[in-house]
Amino acid sequence: MPADFLIEHADVVATCAGPAPRRGRAQRDIGAVRDGAIAARDGRILFVGPHEALAARVSVAPGAVRVDARGCTVVPGFVDAHTHLVYAGDRLDELQQRLAGATYAEIAAAGGGIGRTVAATRAASEDDLVRAARARLDEMAASGTTTCEVKSGYGLATEVELRQLRAIRRLDAEHPIDLVPTFLGAHDVPAEYRSRPDDYVALVIDEMIPRVAAAALAEWCDVFCEVGAFTPAQATAVLRAGARAGLKPRIHADELASSGGARVAAEVGARSADHLIFVDEPAADALARAGVCAVLLPTAALYLKLGRYAPARMLIDREVPVALGTDVNPGAGLSSSMAFAITLACFAMDMTLEEALIAATLNAAWSLDRAATVGSLEVGKLMDAVLMEGDLTSLIRVGSSPIRTVIKRGRLVVGG
Amino acid sequence: MPADFLIEHADVVATCAGPAPRRGRAQRDIGAVRDGAIAARDGRILFVGPHEALAARVSVAPGAVRVDARGCTVVPGFVDAHTHLVYAGDRLDELQQRLAGATYAEIAAAGGGIGRTVAATRAASEDDLVRAARARLDEMAASGTTTCEVKSGYGLATEVELRQLRAIRRLDAEHPIDLVPTFLGAHDVPAEYRSRPDDYVALVIDEMIPRVAAAALAEWCDVFCEVGAFTPAQATAVLRAGARAGLKPRIHADELASSGGARVAAEVGARSADHLIFVDEPAADALARAGVCAVLLPTAALYLKLGRYAPARMLIDREVPVALGTDVNPGAGLSSSMAFAITLACFAMDMTLEEALIAATLNAAWSLDRAATVGSLEVGKLMDAVLMEGDLTSLIRVGSSPIRTVIKRGRLVVGG
Repeated sequence: MPADFLIEHADVVATCAGPAPRRGRAQRDIGAVRDGAIAARDGRILFVGPHEALAARVSVAPGAVRVDARGCTVVPGFVDAHTHLVYAGDRLDELQQRLAGATYAEIAAAGGGIGRTVAATRAASEDDLVRAARARLDEMAASGTTTCEVKSGYGLATEVELRQLRAIRRLDAEHPIDLVPTFLGAHDVPAEYRSRPDDYVALVIDEMIPRVAAAALAEWCDVFCEVGAFTPAQATAVLRAGARAGLKPRIHADELASSGGARVAAEVGARSADHLIFVDEPAADALARAGVCAVLLPTAALYLKLGRYAPARMLIDREVPVALGTDVNPGAGLSSSMAFAITLACFAMDMTLEEALIAATLNAAWSLDRAATVGSLEVGKLMDAVLMEGDLTSLIRVGSSPIRTVIKRGRLVVGG
Repeated sequence: MPADFLIEHADVVATCAGPAPRRGRAQRDIGAVRDGAIAARDGRILFVGPHEALAARVSVAPGAVRVDARGCTVVPGFVDAHTHLVYAGDRLDELQQRLAGATYAEIAAAGGGIGRTVAATRAASEDDLVRAARARLDEMAASGTTTCEVKSGYGLATEVELRQLRAIRRLDAEHPIDLVPTFLGAHDVPAEYRSRPDDYVALVIDEMIPRVAAAALAEWCDVFCEVGAFTPAQATAVLRAGARAGLKPRIHADELASSGGARVAAEVGARSADHLIFVDEPAADALARAGVCAVLLPTAALYLKLGRYAPARMLIDREVPVALGTDVNPGAGLSSSMAFAITLACFAMDMTLEEALIAATLNAAWSLDRAATVGSLEVGKLMDAVLMEGDLTSLIRVGSSPIRTVIKRGRLVVGG
């Protein structure tokens, strides 16, 4: 079968190939190939290896696209394991107030905060939601992301949650980036249920989850387990109900305090526990034993000015697989750049560059149950790759993007 | 005098106009003008104000360039108050080792560290230095920097220091960015003087400073005052000798420990004390009394993984004017983006966005004795500006540059 797409003479191809998830010392193994080449057909990889072995292994179809990668490093397309990409309105004015010293409580009291996004999203049509998110997806693609998770959670009412999820489905169909849909009805207790949160949990379990599952609009069920949001007992009930309906569990855990979220993740067998800024060692051991992936979002920790970051070294040392996401959202999720998440992973969470790359590709793919098709450059997987000028360290030079070409399913999304 | 260059209908022009340096509460005053316009001729500003007042105040020359700034915010061109832009070689391999856990001592023992840059710079010709730095300057211009300080300090031998400074002079002449030259012969004690550092200080004072001053190759004299580099007494001697020769003092102070650098700055009347990660309150008061500008380099603190940042709030509260720089350098100065310095100023040093903008423009200009010509959008100053899509918060969305147009002396350096 002749190749219709080739990357030739890359200084280095960081394949990230091998079993997933990668944990402990193995998270450093990026499978670097010098003077590397990749060949693909119909968006699937046929060959990855040293350029000198290419000719003997694959023939080239007439009209094939050949990318000259001299002077470049090639990595798998980034997988963003945690976003809130679909919403209406923005809250940049609040951001400026927050930087000027206003507290979240003051902003919320003035009609701001997540409630404002919920109101705007409820008022938006599906078309509005698609249009607003499309521009954000284009930006993500330009930053090298080729697969991303997207959550609902700004409707907090059945029809609006479904509308958000339908918008995600449309965006997945029309945009080169592949979207992985997550139902997050339990993102916050909406104002009208503030005095009776258990009734809202019942609505999520008895009405939303069945409707979402019946329409096959989500693959995952997520819940924000935190003081002020949902308790461990409520989170457990939601995730178990989701699992019974076929929605696999993941969870927002221990973001603002040690709230028990990581333990819930281990108990229900969630695929991922996200944020984990306040996770402790016993909880980390529970995650490792249960095979839960830690999805860390250092950009969120920075933009929220939490003054600390998830203990990535401790998690890796205790054999928890670590993945990365951007946490794009209308409040403080300002950056959709996985390269920036990698930069903070290295310099604020003390990860090695190799660990951070695995976290942004193979482990992120595994956290979304996509490791069979994306997350590494291996024969049979999708031809999703990022070509950057220079070596891997060019990724962490904030302010000047080294990304020259982004390839999704064998097509040039950026460059070319 | 008709205008030959106009910016019209900007959503907001943040003029940053007013007296310099800005300190305390006044550092928040960015002089925002809604629906703003700017007119210039021959690279100098003729008018800044509301668009509706433009027509009555200036006529327009035939062939004038008109930039439509609808949907955009206009700020003064950024002034980068601290860089080590001119050097040979890079040390990206060491960076990767450092991220993988190697200590600076291990890297230095293997022939790495600053000594490696000194060796490469000594081996480089003036042309080599100019060529390498030119690419970095282009990147800075694309990030909105229109004026930057550049230090010598990788020669640590008279002829090589002079060569670095000549390279800076050539770059200033040939590149749109204006460069402000600083002599930093006392950057480190070179290997050949390791056992007799006072002899090196004598060389700096008795030979280098007179040669630099005689050739008018630098405007400033800087010294790295730190344990392991130069003592407060040595730093004082160097800066006083520089001042006698007409080189104005600035200083690397309290970067890695409370080393007395800020006190030296106050005593010798330095224009700036840079880094200041470990400055304490009494030293801050001394800086305020002496009128020393704090040049903070949060990117360096991140990339060096110091785990802390300069106490910007304390400095501002104690009426020390605060400026920003990138600290571009071959070791850990990976980012030349002033927008990233502003981002960390906001989210890691707790500055407001307005304070950070003043720090990156007017106060940085003042720290370089350039506030009469750059750093704000005011009649008579240079037409140096950055046009970004969206509002000011777009500056702190790392990963996606909002900068659409960069103007230096009335010419389009980026965009157009």
